[in-house]
Amino acid sequence: MTWQLSNTALDEQQLLVNESLMFLGNGYLGVRGNFEEGYRDDYKSIHGTYINAFHEETDIQYGEKLFGFPDFQQKLANVIDAQPIDVFVDGERFSLFEGEIVSFDRTLHMDEGYSVRHIHWRSPNGKEVKLTFTRVVSFVTKELFAIKVDVEPVTDIKEIQLVSKVNGDVTNYVEKGDPRLASGHAKLLYADQAVNDSGLTQIKARTERSNLEVACVTRHEHDGVHEVNCGDHEVTETFTFSGEGASLVKYNVYTDTLRHGEDLLQKGIDIQNKLASFDAILAEQKGYLDEFWRVSDVAVSGDDSLQEGIRFNLYHLLQSVGKDSVSNISAKGLSGEGYEGHYFWDTEIYIFPVFLMTNPEIAKGLLLHRYSTLDAARARAKEMGHKQGALFPWRTITGPESSAFFPAGTAQYHISADIAYSFIQYYLVTKDEQFKEDYLAEVLIETARLWADTGFMKDGKFLINNVTGPDEYTCIVNNNYYTNAMAKYNMEWAYKIYQDVQDRELVEKLGVTAEEAAFWNEAAENMFLPYNEELGINEQDDTFLNKEVWDLDNTSEEEYPLLLNYHPLTLYRYQVCKQADTVLAHFLVEDFADEEAIRKSYDYYERVTTHDSSLSYCVFSIMASKLGHDEKAYHYFNETARLDIDNLHKNTKDGLHMANMGGTWLAMVYGFAGLRVKEEGLNFAPRQVAAWDDFSFSLRFRGRLISVELKGGQVVYTLVEGDDVTIGHYDKKLQLTVDSPVAKSL
Amino acid sequence: MTWQLSNTALDEQQLLVNESLMFLGNGYLGVRGNFEEGYRDDYKSIHGTYINAFHEETDIQYGEKLFGFPDFQQKLANVIDAQPIDVFVDGERFSLFEGEIVSFDRTLHMDEGYSVRHIHWRSPNGKEVKLTFTRVVSFVTKELFAIKVDVEPVTDIKEIQLVSKVNGDVTNYVEKGDPRLASGHAKLLYADQAVNDSGLTQIKARTERSNLEVACVTRHEHDGVHEVNCGDHEVTETFTFSGEGASLVKYNVYTDTLRHGEDLLQKGIDIQNKLASFDAILAEQKGYLDEFWRVSDVAVSGDDSLQEGIRFNLYHLLQSVGKDSVSNISAKGLSGEGYEGHYFWDTEIYIFPVFLMTNPEIAKGLLLHRYSTLDAARARAKEMGHKQGALFPWRTITGPESSAFFPAGTAQYHISADIAYSFIQYYLVTKDEQFKEDYLAEVLIETARLWADTGFMKDGKFLINNVTGPDEYTCIVNNNYYTNAMAKYNMEWAYKIYQDVQDRELVEKLGVTAEEAAFWNEAAENMFLPYNEELGINEQDDTFLNKEVWDLDNTSEEEYPLLLNYHPLTLYRYQVCKQADTVLAHFLVEDFADEEAIRKSYDYYERVTTHDSSLSYCVFSIMASKLGHDEKAYHYFNETARLDIDNLHKNTKDGLHMANMGGTWLAMVYGFAGLRVKEEGLNFAPRQVAAWDDFSFSLRFRGRLISVELKGGQVVYTLVEGDDVTIGHYDKKLQLTVDSPVAKSL
Repeated sequence: MTWQLSNTALDEQQLLVNESLMFLGNGYLGVRGNFEEGYRDDYKSIHGTYINAFHEETDIQYGEKLFGFPDFQQKLANVIDAQPIDVFVDGERFSLFEGEIVSFDRTLHMDEGYSVRHIHWRSPNGKEVKLTFTRVVSFVTKELFAIKVDVEPVTDIKEIQLVSKVNGDVTNYVEKGDPRLASGHAKLLYADQAVNDSGLTQIKARTERSNLEVACVTRHEHDGVHEVNCGDHEVTETFTFSGEGASLVKYNVYTDTLRHGEDLLQKGIDIQNKLASFDAILAEQKGYLDEFWRVSDVAVSGDDSLQEGIRFNLYHLLQSVGKDSVSNISAKGLSGEGYEGHYFWDTEIYIFPVFLMTNPEIAKGLLLHRYSTLDAARARAKEMGHKQGALFPWRTITGPESSAFFPAGTAQYHISADIAYSFIQYYLVTKDEQFKEDYLAEVLIETARLWADTGFMKDGKFLINNVTGPDEYTCIVNNNYYTNAMAKYNMEWAYKIYQDVQDRELVEKLGVTAEEAAFWNEAAENMFLPYNEELGINEQDDTFLNKEVWDLDNTSEEEYPLLLNYHPLTLYRYQVCKQADTVLAHFLVEDFADEEAIRKSYDYYERVTTHDSSLSYCVFSIMASKLGHDEKAYHYFNETARLDIDNLHKNTKDGLHMANMGGTWLAMVYGFAGLRVKEEGLNFAPRQVAAWDDFSFSLRFRGRLISVELKGGQVVYTLVEGDDVTIGHYDKKLQLTVDSPVAKSL
Repeated sequence: MTWQLSNTALDEQQLLVNESLMFLGNGYLGVRGNFEEGYRDDYKSIHGTYINAFHEETDIQYGEKLFGFPDFQQKLANVIDAQPIDVFVDGERFSLFEGEIVSFDRTLHMDEGYSVRHIHWRSPNGKEVKLTFTRVVSFVTKELFAIKVDVEPVTDIKEIQLVSKVNGDVTNYVEKGDPRLASGHAKLLYADQAVNDSGLTQIKARTERSNLEVACVTRHEHDGVHEVNCGDHEVTETFTFSGEGASLVKYNVYTDTLRHGEDLLQKGIDIQNKLASFDAILAEQKGYLDEFWRVSDVAVSGDDSLQEGIRFNLYHLLQSVGKDSVSNISAKGLSGEGYEGHYFWDTEIYIFPVFLMTNPEIAKGLLLHRYSTLDAARARAKEMGHKQGALFPWRTITGPESSAFFPAGTAQYHISADIAYSFIQYYLVTKDEQFKEDYLAEVLIETARLWADTGFMKDGKFLINNVTGPDEYTCIVNNNYYTNAMAKYNMEWAYKIYQDVQDRELVEKLGVTAEEAAFWNEAAENMFLPYNEELGINEQDDTFLNKEVWDLDNTSEEEYPLLLNYHPLTLYRYQVCKQADTVLAHFLVEDFADEEAIRKSYDYYERVTTHDSSLSYCVFSIMASKLGHDEKAYHYFNETARLDIDNLHKNTKDGLHMANMGGTWLAMVYGFAGLRVKEEGLNFAPRQVAAWDDFSFSLRFRGRLISVELKGGQVVYTLVEGDDVTIGHYDKKLQLTVDSPVAKSL
């Protein structure tokens, strides 16, 4: 059952969670797992359909607004709702909360890309039917969300009616009190057309400020008697069948301004006209997923629950990641409205590597989306008082900073280095020289300029003051180790790439001088990386170690996450980390510290880290693997794999934790298998995972497909596709040739 | 003319400024200097009447709300408007913006406590009248605001009509964009009664959330024909006179829940019934002010413009300061709505000393108001994660934290030490032992507890991390010198006073142990006070000197104040100060640093300070005097004396800068005259002010009145009232006996 997620809960809280867990998407479109027929009237539901990057702008309110605080925020908009289908059996409305449930199952099929509910229902009046709801969001035709409903009589039934609705009058979900779910305006979308013409329901809606349009064209396949009712903002279609059974397929095609430009309805109609049958769509879907899993699956034996979590996480990353350069992958993917559909550094550090190593074309799309926001980042740098450079926003959709709390938002300057890092990683893995010239060089130049302007040389050291590192429990500090190390890498590479492109038009266009580039090198070489002699660790920042240590031993379960129970100022006053910070730098740019410092830092920070962020466990797992703490590595990994399935952070209802999902893969591949991407190629330092008999995965590398399997005390590297390649195994070089596995003992 | 402020501007901007400059108040009631007949319709006006501490609560909106951020804010409410009086001359409505102004003057009489406008007006139809508007807010009957209108015909007039209105349907002023004028809900007050009964107009209104009531009872004195018109929320009375002239006195009596409890209208009527005539009221007013000026005046010869500024500032402090323990003095006094009528540390550090040394009973009222908020401060400490102690809010009216931006708000923990400091100062000046037992001890114990919980001992030093000092361009730092020094003083005195009261009930009630008190002493003795060996200065905080120095030489005029042109993060990144910080500590607790460090620190911080805060110049002036930089002392002093009159900060329309007004006095008395209050008594270190032939002032000290005069190269100390006393003059002791001046050469 590791390819399926099943859950039959009917209580309000788990239903909300299941809306996220059972969501279907394809990176363009996402539909939460609501019931077609709805819940009980008194149940809360986050009823939503989203198009990646389709957003409205809403004003940000501040008690005190200072200069440079963003005026507005982009916000993922809930779009036209095509989920509703009501079923009437001899006039009785079907509901899982009325009558009797003889049997019920609900399953997400991750190998085939659809979800299904089977219900055997006995109505209050004693009528019995078997219902099947099958839904799919197509990976092949990204605009398509289809639902098939089958109703089979068990007792004698006279009439079955299916009432299907498409509704343009939708709102976003708003909940007060949780800072992770910012309150805001709920009504973001206004339907301005709702018709049924030539058998197609056509609804068009728009946002007021961002000026985006979305359309939904819906077609029903059926053999019942059909009746249409058009409202101002919605269209309801009623299908009446005899009592012998009913079957209806609802094909919904979504088009939007960002991908389809104008004439959205016509473009939706054109797509409708080319659709295959429902069965053919499911077959296409399976074909797409077969290829995905062939390359991307990570298999472990001996723990089905964990295997389920691993596949679940990979599957949902695939469902959420934007596959055009218009969109990226938001913190909650397309599974919910938490974090307003914004893109964070989560992309670059936690998710991008997964695609880079398995589906590099998707990874490239993520970078091109970031590149499309470079001008906005340049403008933001200016607004933030910089004379030059590009400052990428902490959270955004199309480029403008959407963060309303700068100490844990805009102050996280490291995101600019994180983005530069991912561009470099892409180049290292693909050696795509055209990419270097077209994108990498410009991004490195502009980010290096930002660092040059933000920091300064003092007593022979390059210092970067007043930024916030990844750990949001310690904000606005000087010389955050993570930030400085990442900036060092950023400037080092900017200088290196500048050498390659210095005679190109780009360099002239940007007005880069040799002196400027030389300064990047000087700053990188002299970057101050805080180190405490006494403890032998890298300090998280200049003053972290001068603070009192938070008493975690006497902190009760109810006090976590600390951010929901303590004022930020209180948290800032202590040595207590929300998440990996220095430890993360020791993973990403390991060469900047010696192993002793890395080891001692791990031990030190582990004791003061709460992992209140879902971005933490995976990093500790990776570094535990590196340092040979195998049990810890497994323990931390374990916290990631089922974080959403088991709702460990208690907020899965707002959407899935995409970065953590990437982290599961990172913990396995960078952690257990010890992968590192270096200039000379891939290097592995695998560790046996005691709990698993067998552990295998594949990687894409410069056109090749390489599989790695750990089994029976050895690792086997196999070149599955592509030209011969040399890889590193610890400090040894191995030559791989197609279909000639190379085994090494662990 | 140094007792009067005159201005005849009729342009929109200066009229707005004059509304603040010409405001009348008495510490309870404040009325902005609007025209009774209004302006042009297209002119903006901040039309307001305020009762000190009379407030509503409004929700604070946050883009991202974190734990411990206040949910709501208290806000001074504009109350019932009794200003409007229209004048009709043969049917033509008088306006300074219609017809012809033959002559016009407008004067605030600071020696007699009223304002007056004289206008000789020719109407569009050629009718000429002379009008006089006299208004007074009584210091003797605090509820009273009276207006007298006289109209005298110049040409032949048939009929004069005066239309007087009292309006309960008022709103607060809202302006977008300036962080110093937070936006918010404008409608705070709702009138629920508006009648005219027994010749009295009676209006009662209330706030919805804070549940406060205010009433205005108005009586008109006149000999015209009277007509009343009652609306839902306002009452309009029309008085018709022959063309021979008209005279009307409008007596408005304001009562409120905070001072008058219930039956506000009846209490207003009772007060009305006891009122003296308008002339008698003016006479009483002069009597009150004669005594005020006898003790509080500071006279300088040789510069009328400066003398005007000095008296203006003292006068407005008197008009704004709360004289009951229900209220305090807000940042803008009762002159406008800037800073929402909140009380800040401005009170304790900049204003309280003025009253302490001239009107100690007013000073005591300020302390009692703070004492009344002690429970709220205890609760806030808990909310901020402290196990014990009292954390006073950065801005409040009755106690709850009303700051919406914690880095420059709640993080300014020093306010708790500032309040403790003022309690200690009061005790030093009055030696009031009952006050010590009733109030001082408890405040010191609870503030010392806060520091004990906030800081911690590390390597033999007591450290206080993550606070913001007075300088708001450098927020959330470790070991801010000012904060640590003030906390040291706070804890030192808490230990000292604990010795005196350890056997009292209070100590048992609060559960103070000897160990606890001993720890205050240990912390105070080992308080870490940052000092940089190389520069020989006290560092503003642990990392201030590691930052880049802001290039003030290349900062243009338009870039000031920096906070309106730069993101806080940018400001935090540089060595640039909004205001005196370490330099202020060197004034308040001078014994914690040696003179060399004080001198070098002054020189250093002077170069990086923008004085973008109106709380800065006076401190630099005081310290320049101390260090013998006489020209600088005079220069900085000069910036304070006319800051509002000349609208130097361009925001006087929002209200007067009360702290700066106190600062003017401090710069003269603590600066030029070198006053310091020590345990052994008063000490002076006067410096000749080159620009002045004569400079004199008086002080109250333990029941005595002492006058000080600097003239002709010598200082003359005279005990005007009271028992013999010893004072210090530099390092000499002088014995003063009544009416026996003691002269010393300078």
